[in-house]
Amino acid sequence: MRSWLAIDSDSDFSLDNIPFGIVSPLIKRGHWDDEPRAAVAIGEYILDLKKLFDYYYTQGKSGHAVNKFDHLFSCVIGYDTCKYGDVFTRSTLNDFASLGRAAHRQVREGIQVLLREDTPYPQVLKDDQLLRSTAICLRKDVEMHLPFAIGDYTDFYAGYHHAFAVGEMFRGAANAIQPNYNHLPVGYHGRASSIGVAACGSAAITRPVGQILLDPSAEVRKPTTAPSRKLDFELELGCFICVPPDQAGARVDVGEADEHIFGYVLLNDWSARDIQAWEYVPLGPFNSKNFATTISPWVVLADALEPFRAKGIPNQGPTPIQDYLKEDREESCFDIKLEVDLIAGDNATTICRTSSTNLMWSFPQMIAHHTLGGCALRSGDLLGSGTISGPNEGESGSLLELSRNGTKDVLLAGMESRTFLKDGDEVVLRGYCKSAAGVRVGFGECRGKVYPAK
Amino acid sequence: MRSWLAIDSDSDFSLDNIPFGIVSPLIKRGHWDDEPRAAVAIGEYILDLKKLFDYYYTQGKSGHAVNKFDHLFSCVIGYDTCKYGDVFTRSTLNDFASLGRAAHRQVREGIQVLLREDTPYPQVLKDDQLLRSTAICLRKDVEMHLPFAIGDYTDFYAGYHHAFAVGEMFRGAANAIQPNYNHLPVGYHGRASSIGVAACGSAAITRPVGQILLDPSAEVRKPTTAPSRKLDFELELGCFICVPPDQAGARVDVGEADEHIFGYVLLNDWSARDIQAWEYVPLGPFNSKNFATTISPWVVLADALEPFRAKGIPNQGPTPIQDYLKEDREESCFDIKLEVDLIAGDNATTICRTSSTNLMWSFPQMIAHHTLGGCALRSGDLLGSGTISGPNEGESGSLLELSRNGTKDVLLAGMESRTFLKDGDEVVLRGYCKSAAGVRVGFGECRGKVYPAK
Ligand SMILES: [Ca+2]
Ligand SMILES: [Ca+2]
Ligand SMILES: [Mg+2]
Ligand SMILES: [Mg+2]
Ligand code: NI
Repeated sequence: MRSWLAIDSDSDFSLDNIPFGIVSPLIKRGHWDDEPRAAVAIGEYILDLKKLFDYYYTQGKSGHAVNKFDHLFSCVIGYDTCKYGDVFTRSTLNDFASLGRAAHRQVREGIQVLLREDTPYPQVLKDDQLLRSTAICLRKDVEMHLPFAIGDYTDFYAGYHHAFAVGEMFRGAANAIQPNYNHLPVGYHGRASSIGVAACGSAAITRPVGQILLDPSAEVRKPTTAPSRKLDFELELGCFICVPPDQAGARVDVGEADEHIFGYVLLNDWSARDIQAWEYVPLGPFNSKNFATTISPWVVLADALEPFRAKGIPNQGPTPIQDYLKEDREESCFDIKLEVDLIAGDNATTICRTSSTNLMWSFPQMIAHHTLGGCALRSGDLLGSGTISGPNEGESGSLLELSRNGTKDVLLAGMESRTFLKDGDEVVLRGYCKSAAGVRVGFGECRGKVYPAK
Repeated sequence: MRSWLAIDSDSDFSLDNIPFGIVSPLIKRGHWDDEPRAAVAIGEYILDLKKLFDYYYTQGKSGHAVNKFDHLFSCVIGYDTCKYGDVFTRSTLNDFASLGRAAHRQVREGIQVLLREDTPYPQVLKDDQLLRSTAICLRKDVEMHLPFAIGDYTDFYAGYHHAFAVGEMFRGAANAIQPNYNHLPVGYHGRASSIGVAACGSAAITRPVGQILLDPSAEVRKPTTAPSRKLDFELELGCFICVPPDQAGARVDVGEADEHIFGYVLLNDWSARDIQAWEYVPLGPFNSKNFATTISPWVVLADALEPFRAKGIPNQGPTPIQDYLKEDREESCFDIKLEVDLIAGDNATTICRTSSTNLMWSFPQMIAHHTLGGCALRSGDLLGSGTISGPNEGESGSLLELSRNGTKDVLLAGMESRTFLKDGDEVVLRGYCKSAAGVRVGFGECRGKVYPAK
């Protein structure tokens, strides 16, 4: 698919992608519109869906406001009726998500039709210079916001090689994988208020202060309170949930869980390893995680990843998994190429290259498990995959693994090295899929920069 | 203080209390108003603050809407200006909470003045029969809602005797208390979507289905998926947070944490012990907790509990606590008498009597720790204390302790006994403070009933 907009062939935001986000467009130099609204990214541009909605919604001829916007999409994609109302004028994607997968598909396809070089509806956008100049602007001229009001955030632990490597580090290879790991997608409730995006450039991450046990071998354990010395990143995939109102609170079958997935983002679960080691017994990580979590601001719809399905890590547990976790489909993950850059001063080094096929549990399995006991998922809930690492050198999605808990230097460009993150370091996560035919669907960047402790 | 409303001397909702909640008043038999709004409870009655606001807000003489409501409170309590706007017309208390402690104090005192037998402003409410019949109704004629939109819910573990008893049960007395327990208020992020109130009567709790390891001693551990056989309650105190917008995201000093406490509720952290035992390694409880959490619907303001300050459990750790947790004040807890009734069939048995003085960490300490590393608290966030148990027989706030993990029958009235909860069982938490002079400030009931697994 080619667009009448100029799109680089290596852009993450191809016409095959059409990711959604919440933006504030620049009004004039240094001033942003104060009303965040929905948009899609396309190449170096964004299409402002509120502007598109306003333009068509208010064109009623009788003097009454009529919803020509819904009518427009009905015509463009050939459905009888589309009912989106004014969901794109809201400051989050929650209401759009709640319309369900069929609506997301309609809107994505409708936008693709409008943007295609050979669009059969050039009068709607392509040839309407007024609307184009109003609703389309450069991506660099918008400020990004959190795409959703996130009711609850759950972080899983489905990256098998990460779980193995960390387990081996602290318990040895024989006990690396806990007995429950092959039976259920282990996860914990994270802190929704910790989640942020980079408005532009990098998200600012303040190094957390916390309780640290400097000498764990002392007979009387005496912690100190200090800035974390072991600040780390975690390379994860995030999954945004959609739940139509009539399905609220229901248990979700693994085979139907796809219908509850709105889309995906990259997720950096910043972690303070020294705070974590002291606090996590017996109830799990707390202050070591709740200071910051950064996601990429553009949400790639589930449909856009469908062409890139792939098998995950086989579950080689000693006994079969429970029925409610069994999937008919073998290709229940995606092959998303993932990379991590660490920028120290002027030099960027790619310190990790891996793939999301390194997950042992799929998101449908996580959703089936999450809702098994009666836990209600809501539109806008965010699930993290857990750290994604490959089995080989240079494939680890955290410095904990790359530096073997600080015992080995990770070499960087410019004669630098790291065990954990220093103030001023910038971490950039990237992810993209590419088909044999050259179709590329990517996530853009998830970028955060470390600032000194306060 | 006596009121011109008839209030029982043993009512939890005395004129000294004035707890806040969100209600839907009954319009006619079987039909509730569909707009939840703020109210206070007073004896068997509620005072509808939206009705009070609407009545005075719209009485402007010039034809313009003027805020006589704020003016009213300014006069009633003698402040120059009160600015509440229309916070009481909202469907949650979040915006009221964000006004800060001084505003909560003004409104509580203003309402006390209006309701006093010797009110100097009888014309405002006492002698205005139209307003009285509009804004005051019986508590049994309203439906209750969640008082807040809860952004994040954190459950701590500050009940020393509970932590000791559970630790002793699984690790023996010598290792009952983990090394970090005396140094930091251990806590975990709970599931905000799990929290509910009883609209009227009891909250309906569906027994959760989950993975259970029936034979933990087997060489190959093979779980089954089944309804929990070890469904339990946990007696806790909940604390609602208030954060004025200008203080968003800041670290909170332990000495200033009171300013971030809106008020308190009773909290039942329903727990499935068999699901918990299998899932919780290494990231903490998940499906064993996220199916349901019930709070009492009326929030007792922090000011109402001030007269009942008391010392908690002394922290007898081997080394002093960190400076950021040190409190000047010795009486950093409250002496709230707590009781648990288990209703089986027609018989209610009080199975636990204890006090909130059994907490080793205070809520100000929990808040100071929670925000130490940069975690942002927001108005409407809920903190749970952790299970509150006393050291003696009959003082345990969970069946796990009362039945020693199912090995001992808990005897009930009517020849019944329990180890864990059966379908049909009802659990009622109660809590109240009483002064030597007979002043009573209580929480009403936190009530939930167990229904069969689906
Ligand atoms: Ca993680
Ligand atoms: Ca608890
Ligand atoms: Mg994090
Ligand atoms: Mg619970
Ligand atoms: Ni007309």
